[in-house]
Amino acid sequence: MNARVERLRGELERLEVASFLVSNPVNVRYLTGFESSNAFVLVKHKDVVLMTDGRYAQAARGVEGVELVVVERDFLPGLAANLAELAEGPMGFESDHLTVARHADLLSTGVELVPAAAVVLALRAVKERDELEEIRRAARIVDDVLVRLAGENIVGRSEAEVAWWIVEAIHEEGADDVSFEPIVGSGPNAALPHHHPGDREIEARETVVVDLGAKVNGYCSDCTRTFATGELASDLRDAYAVCQSAQAASLAEVRAGADLRGLDAIARMEIEASGNDVLHGLGHGVGLEVHEGPRLSKASEDVVAAGEVVTVEPGVYIPGSLGVRTEDLVVVEEDGARNLSGLDKDLRVVE
Amino acid sequence: MNARVERLRGELERLEVASFLVSNPVNVRYLTGFESSNAFVLVKHKDVVLMTDGRYAQAARGVEGVELVVVERDFLPGLAANLAELAEGPMGFESDHLTVARHADLLSTGVELVPAAAVVLALRAVKERDELEEIRRAARIVDDVLVRLAGENIVGRSEAEVAWWIVEAIHEEGADDVSFEPIVGSGPNAALPHHHPGDREIEARETVVVDLGAKVNGYCSDCTRTFATGELASDLRDAYAVCQSAQAASLAEVRAGADLRGLDAIARMEIEASGNDVLHGLGHGVGLEVHEGPRLSKASEDVVAAGEVVTVEPGVYIPGSLGVRTEDLVVVEEDGARNLSGLDKDLRVVE
Repeated sequence: MNARVERLRGELERLEVASFLVSNPVNVRYLTGFESSNAFVLVKHKDVVLMTDGRYAQAARGVEGVELVVVERDFLPGLAANLAELAEGPMGFESDHLTVARHADLLSTGVELVPAAAVVLALRAVKERDELEEIRRAARIVDDVLVRLAGENIVGRSEAEVAWWIVEAIHEEGADDVSFEPIVGSGPNAALPHHHPGDREIEARETVVVDLGAKVNGYCSDCTRTFATGELASDLRDAYAVCQSAQAASLAEVRAGADLRGLDAIARMEIEASGNDVLHGLGHGVGLEVHEGPRLSKASEDVVAAGEVVTVEPGVYIPGSLGVRTEDLVVVEEDGARNLSGLDKDLRVVE
Repeated sequence: MNARVERLRGELERLEVASFLVSNPVNVRYLTGFESSNAFVLVKHKDVVLMTDGRYAQAARGVEGVELVVVERDFLPGLAANLAELAEGPMGFESDHLTVARHADLLSTGVELVPAAAVVLALRAVKERDELEEIRRAARIVDDVLVRLAGENIVGRSEAEVAWWIVEAIHEEGADDVSFEPIVGSGPNAALPHHHPGDREIEARETVVVDLGAKVNGYCSDCTRTFATGELASDLRDAYAVCQSAQAASLAEVRAGADLRGLDAIARMEIEASGNDVLHGLGHGVGLEVHEGPRLSKASEDVVAAGEVVTVEPGVYIPGSLGVRTEDLVVVEEDGARNLSGLDKDLRVVE
């Protein structure tokens, strides 16, 4: 009995479908444990069908509780004839993953298609105990790497060099992988939230935004700290203080039932009140993907639930000039947030 | 004047559209040089509009020859009102990238949408001189890494350890990144074309399939060699010989105008004649993505053109038992193939 598949089955009635076709590889993995760039899972009331191509067939034979159908790499040839039969009626599909072209292919099989977005994503948001444990391990690795980084000399090294140092350190600390390429943004580059580390040499007396994550058994962590490379001018100190204050204020309100947009607004208002622009939302869910549901932003329309894992990461940026960001990874609990990011947030000088 | 944008403009008439919306980030990068996880390029007869959100706005201001529109992260709010106006008539879109949900969003703006697949992908297939140079550099790095690996002791080390050794070596040789996580499949795992390297310790007298690639300035390389960890039993020697022969036969026929399915068939028939199954097509294009057009497979319906860069990688696998694969990266020329993979293919013993 696969509890995740059962939860998805529980959605079939609401969606008014006889079956649901999962095409997003992350969702395929979540439901079956099977990793492949080309696999589909059809969840029906009684059975689960796993479809993949010959490159993955041998590995797929090890997946329990599914009926395996080996298809052509293009999926449709050979399957088209009996998809309508397999579906057993109206078939839901992941409208936020399936492309328009693939959708047209499916339509041509005669199966009745029902679009549905974020169905498995919603199931993934609340983490099981084992998932929390993997994320906690991934977060602890990042803590250890940041502590080590704080003991390095980074002034005079390029951003790209420091980013690669982080990749190696994450591996040395026992992660399977990084959860994303580390961001190392120094000086004016710190103002670019998604800066790609480059040749710029880190200078003294500036801020360096370091945003990194590890992956353990498929589960991600995500954390940002901003270091100072010497004594900072007042504009940088002020930006750091605003960022810390905005983060503390929003973190203090995280608990089950809290309004996602409201959490974002707490930090947003504080940053705007300081005269700065807000360039991105407050945070996002983290799990098998480093960015998943829920989102903490001004466009959010839901509340957070106990067991969800989210980032809280306000940033203060002056484009072309400077940037500061602090990010913690937290588990939402009934009466607060359990912080998985262990490193303190006092301004740390690393030279 | 951007020659790539001009080539895309040349497609507008054929598609019977006034503009074309590019949503695939790789294609956005190809056309504008701009890297972002959330950017759209609208190519019109006279102008090019680049749309991205606040996180990337500052970086986007450096892109030449485009009109920049900063949108919400969800893209539609704020843009919906004037998309129909921006599009200047029927608007083509990437039906092989745009999701069904995003398509529904676009439809709601009132713009007339015309689906088109593989439009920019086709433009990307034939490489420019500078692109070939980057790919050649990425291929040379892989050659150097394989030569170094051949001098290592790998028996007794885990696949995952060897895979990480490769990642570090690719970085040390000057690549920006790997083009994909290296595949190291030993013994029975060599029979899994897309094996994820794990804890299995490499043993003596088996084959180890090593499939790796580097990335230089965004461009990928891809190469596979199969090593022997000591003297091989006859079934492994036979598999190696079949694979080599199949590769040599298909490589010999690569030239501008050669039939893609025909190339695949040469290797396929030879492998099947030896009594083995064929688990995957002969190869694929390589460029900004490690898997791009064209495909060399039994489903292909086109010919290769001069300037395309493709892999030629037959494999011989006995599921649960053994595997062998050899892969070269070649540039298609008028009268043959220029091989970018410099390492010879004699069976190499690495212990």
